[in-house]
Order: sequence, then structure tokens, then C-alpha cells
Amino acid sequence: MISVVIIGNGNVAHHLEKTFLKASGIHVSRINSRSLNDIPKADVTILAVSDNAIASVSLKITNSFVVHTSGSFSMEALQNKESKGVFYMLQTFTKEKEVDFSQVPFCLEASSQTGYLLLEKLAKSFGNKVYPINSAQRKALHIAAVFVNNFTNHMYKIGNDICEKHQVPFDILFPLIDETAQKIKTLSPQLAQTGPAKRNDTETIKNHLELLNQEQQEIYKILTRSITDATR
Amino acid sequence: MISVVIIGNGNVAHHLEKTFLKASGIHVSRINSRSLNDIPKADVTILAVSDNAIASVSLKITNSFVVHTSGSFSMEALQNKESKGVFYMLQTFTKEKEVDFSQVPFCLEASSQTGYLLLEKLAKSFGNKVYPINSAQRKALHIAAVFVNNFTNHMYKIGNDICEKHQVPFDILFPLIDETAQKIKTLSPQLAQTGPAKRNDTETIKNHLELLNQEQQEIYKILTRSITDATR
Repeated sequence: MISVVIIGNGNVAHHLEKTFLKASGIHVSRINSRSLNDIPKADVTILAVSDNAIASVSLKITNSFVVHTSGSFSMEALQNKESKGVFYMLQTFTKEKEVDFSQVPFCLEASSQTGYLLLEKLAKSFGNKVYPINSAQRKALHIAAVFVNNFTNHMYKIGNDICEKHQVPFDILFPLIDETAQKIKTLSPQLAQTGPAKRNDTETIKNHLELLNQEQQEIYKILTRSITDATR
Repeated sequence: MISVVIIGNGNVAHHLEKTFLKASGIHVSRINSRSLNDIPKADVTILAVSDNAIASVSLKITNSFVVHTSGSFSMEALQNKESKGVFYMLQTFTKEKEVDFSQVPFCLEASSQTGYLLLEKLAKSFGNKVYPINSAQRKALHIAAVFVNNFTNHMYKIGNDICEKHQVPFDILFPLIDETAQKIKTLSPQLAQTGPAKRNDTETIKNHLELLNQEQQEIYKILTRSITDATR
């Protein structure tokens, strides 16, 4: 039995608690980060708080092993006196949507071997994909995640805006969106690229720009130039 | 039996011919666009040629019903004398990769009702998703497709570049890429957005920019600003 305390009120804390409650061999308690007076002892204390609260919250915790869940902060951001670690799940969490943890990559780091093995055991009790990732690698992964998740989602948003403006249902694009995500599993993104920027089709590019608003034009131009640079 | 002639040498011509050969009720011939002397008669003549060749190639065809497959050119780009149409498949085609046509949206347009019904019959003989889409709507769809396919693929490429530079396997990001594509089927892209730009987390944004090269920084900044604008 691994005892776990989760501190936090956000999406990550919510989904983790829900999953730990279902997993066997885990005893979980959840604590609001604004009431830290009475924290139960536990094998692992998980801070699922906002990045900027990691230092101040960890300073108040005397439990033996404290980990955070942040992609961008290093393990050393933790200010507790004893063992430290990171339990980073590389996935996007939304409160309303179920998370399939069997598909979530767990990126683990710990200041001691014992700590690492404990995190690994915890992750494997409800997940499949476990990676040892140090703070520098995690930071790079987090930036890459901003591109493939946040910025990609913004490409979808602009696609949706264009469809709405011209009264075409956005869902006609869903098979293309799926295929784009699937294709890079067998071809590198470099080889998977197609379209007017890749072909240097200046006529089509000019026609497209005419139908976009100023902000969309700026994005279209800079990404077209970047694809052209990558093709050379 | 529908008789079809495909003119063209590219990926679209290749995949269409392969599929028509397997479908029942279709008789298909394929002609190289550089040898247009002896084109067989057919119910539908499909020009799967580059956009800029549509006018010149169509001018030489005397068959009764000629269609092109371009997302960006209007039906009127065809210069044949008789019936015209468009048979646009909203998907990305790569020679090395099989296409599942049951998942491809067919966007159809024709200058006559008879022509439209013929294209619809043809599309339904090997596909499921058929939409009547006029030239203005198709142009908007094509631009939206550049954002959700070409530009999204470029986000994957930058993610891959960052991973390579920092020696992290890119495939750790695959589950996140999949979830990003799935999420917008139940939530609008606007509601699905998360991350530092959405939270206006200037500290994380600053940290990220420090690890990027100049071109990546430019893209990061403009997309962060655009997400911030959309969040307001």
C-alpha cells in the first residue's frame, strides 16, 4: 500500500485523486492548498498547485518525500527539507473530460533512487508509459508540448473561425485533422509536409492571404516562410 | 457502370486510380497529362493535375463532363466546352501511405444537376462522406485546411526539432498530439485551449523564449499574442 497526499484544487489534482481512488494499493487524501495546517503523513506528497505556488507551499511541508507536477519548473524549485521529486504527466487536462491514464506518459525524476522507484511504482499502478526525465529534458518537452498542443489547438481555432465566417461545417475537417496527427507516427513531420508553402506555390498563397483578416495573415505569412526555410 | 478517365501523374491520381480499380461498377483508365492525344470517352473525366495546368489541359478535352480536384481553384477555371464539376477530396495524400477513403470527405460541385448526381454516385461507390460545396465555400475550406494540416504539421516539426536538440524522444508527445486532435470533437477549440498563453503566464513564456532559436521565438510570440487576443 502506497499512501499519497495530493495538495491542490485544479484539473490535475482532480483527475489524479479520481484515479487513485479507483486504483488498488493506493491510499489517497486530498488537501486544499489554502488549508495546510494539518497535512497527514504519507509516502508521497504530490503538489498539484500552480507553478508559482510550488516554492511557498513546499516550504510548509515536513513529509518525507515531496514532488511537484509541473512541466516547466525544475525539481529544485521545491523548498522542503527532505527528499524531492517530479511527477509530470505529459497530457492536457480538462475538468469536463475523462483522462485515459493508460495513454498518459509519466515523466519522473527524484533526488534519490528510493524516491524514483516509489514514483515508478505509483505511476505503473494506473499507467503504462513511464520515462526517467531530468529537469532540463522536461523543460524542453514542456516547450515542445506548447507547440504540438496549445499552438496546434490555435490552428484548429483559426480553421474553425474561417469555416464559421464562410458557413462551412468545421467537422468536414475532422478526418484531415486526424490524418495529420496519425501521419507523423510513420513519417517525420518534415517528410509529412505538403501544401502551398512546401510547393512554394506563390499564386495560391496570394489568393489565401486575400481571404484572411490581418492577424490571420501575419500568422499565415510567418508559418509559410518557416515551412519554406525548412524545405530548402 | 460509370466510366472514368483520370488525367494526372501525382498522388491524387495515383490513389484514385488504385481505389477505382478495386471498386465495383467503375471502369477506369489513367492518362498521363503530357500525352493528351488520345483520350478515351468517359462519363466523368477527372483532371488530377496541378492547379496551374487545369485551364490548359481542360481546353484540350472534348469529353462531355470534365471535373478538377483542386481545393483552391473555382469550377470556372475549367475551359472545356461542355459540363463541368469539382471532385475535391479534403485529405492529405502521400504516395507511400494508404488512404482510407471511407473517412475522406468528398466536396462536390457541378454545373448541372445530372453532373452532380453522377459525382455523388461515384463518390458513394467507395466513400461515405459527401457534401455539396460551392466554389466560395471550397476556397474557405482549403484555407482552413492549410491551418489545420500544413501549419499544424509544422508545429509538430518544431516540437520534433526541440526534442532532438534536447535529446528527448519525440514519441513521448504522441498521446498529447492525439488528445489535442480528439478534444475539439467534443469541445470547441476556443474552450479546449490551455497553457501559458491562455493563462497569461508571462514568467513561463519568458522562460520558454530563452530556449528557442530566433525563428521559433518569432512564431512563439505571434501565436501567444493571438491566443491572448482570443482569450480576452
